[in-house]
Amino acid sequence: MTRIAAVQLGPVVGELDRNTAEITAALRDALAGGADVVVVPELATSGYVFDSVDEARSVAIRADDPRFAAWARLLAARRGSVLVVGFAEAADDALYNSAAVVTGDGVQAVYRKVHLWDREKQVFRPGDARPPVVETAHGRVGVLICFDLEFPEWTRIVALAGADLLAAPTNWPLGPRPNDERVAEVQIAIATARMNHMAIAFADRSGTERGVDWSEGTGIVGADGWLRDTVGPGTGVAWADLDLPASRDKGQSELVDLFGDRRPDLYGPLLG
Amino acid sequence: MTRIAAVQLGPVVGELDRNTAEITAALRDALAGGADVVVVPELATSGYVFDSVDEARSVAIRADDPRFAAWARLLAARRGSVLVVGFAEAADDALYNSAAVVTGDGVQAVYRKVHLWDREKQVFRPGDARPPVVETAHGRVGVLICFDLEFPEWTRIVALAGADLLAAPTNWPLGPRPNDERVAEVQIAIATARMNHMAIAFADRSGTERGVDWSEGTGIVGADGWLRDTVGPGTGVAWADLDLPASRDKGQSELVDLFGDRRPDLYGPLLG
Repeated sequence: MTRIAAVQLGPVVGELDRNTAEITAALRDALAGGADVVVVPELATSGYVFDSVDEARSVAIRADDPRFAAWARLLAARRGSVLVVGFAEAADDALYNSAAVVTGDGVQAVYRKVHLWDREKQVFRPGDARPPVVETAHGRVGVLICFDLEFPEWTRIVALAGADLLAAPTNWPLGPRPNDERVAEVQIAIATARMNHMAIAFADRSGTERGVDWSEGTGIVGADGWLRDTVGPGTGVAWADLDLPASRDKGQSELVDLFGDRRPDLYGPLLG
Repeated sequence: MTRIAAVQLGPVVGELDRNTAEITAALRDALAGGADVVVVPELATSGYVFDSVDEARSVAIRADDPRFAAWARLLAARRGSVLVVGFAEAADDALYNSAAVVTGDGVQAVYRKVHLWDREKQVFRPGDARPPVVETAHGRVGVLICFDLEFPEWTRIVALAGADLLAAPTNWPLGPRPNDERVAEVQIAIATARMNHMAIAFADRSGTERGVDWSEGTGIVGADGWLRDTVGPGTGVAWADLDLPASRDKGQSELVDLFGDRRPDLYGPLLG
């Protein structure tokens, strides 16, 4: 079994050092709690509601930033453990809303968010590459970020590429919803897990930032599509022990297979 | 506004005349209640748990069967009204698990289920065509059947083809689920509506047939992804008044568009 921790944090926009320290503390705590895979929110290093591109640039870091090496050293102390962390990425030519997959051996992959949401488009350049699926000691970990989850083609691609677990750093702004309904994006994660027989761990923001309230929707869904744990209001951790490689069995009976029953002759291969 | 009725029925396998009478009565009642669009279950004419292909063939009807004309006459009395009904279709070469879109002018389209589930494969031939999206007096009505809903490529295609409402006859066998959780397939419908900003009406079976319990999951979801009504145990009708053409507005803000934000450069057009 793989112990997964999805961590709900409340970063402060523009405070890179403070946010880095929070992530480090959360990672340390999660590993001490036996976590094998730790997911923290989108843009956890930087905050989200930037006043300007310059402000975003001031807290953007490169994928070879020493912070990742510091987290890798923590991860190296727990054999096979993995961190998925959202960060504002500074590249030579642009800023990206990115997530890194880090192990004890360092950064294994960086994903640049493809489906930017709303005013993110005024700050970041969209990614142009398929999401990584990283072979880890605990199974294959795919990565998407927030609004990406609302594009069923994109989540399907992660599943078809073989991900056992989709790790999704998010910042879900709070929207209106009927009483007793879950956060809408959580319902999408639940359905996505079931349609693809793929576990999903999503780490959301807590609190309020420059007038934006967050959904505080952090949780973990099993490959069977049932929600295992959530955090609720405030910071905290959702936990689940999951058999990740079991996600690979897409069969539901001798005659039902969620992938084998697809009809790419009618809608293209997606993964071509 | 369009008044939609999703009707939960309990057909009896093999009893074509009885089931036809039930559908006729349900249609009459729904129209009397002001329904503009009426959806009844998958294989509502025939029942589902066939003992043999011969039994299925004995209750299969052709798409030009006089039953459809009789329903069309009822529909003609309520201007613009539409029926979506699941039936076992006899064609020259095979049996299909089909659904017809019927108006006062007769059968407008027939969809043959593409993603057959489990032992359906031993009885029916899968469809080979894209789902129809029918321009009606109340907006564009797309049609899929049951397990089709669990293929996000397929529901996306219906939305991209312009459906305001996806009408889905279903027969959802009851599966295990945690307390207080909705039927899993209903959660998929909710997420699908939201991801595509498309209303969905799904008409399920009630009761038990040859040892198979049904989920009794009939309901209607708005394009905003919130469930408007359900039936619960037994036969009955879920009702909703929806502004169907409003489904066409995929924008969520000046900078967010659920379709415009897609990246077909990375996953193909789906609708090519």
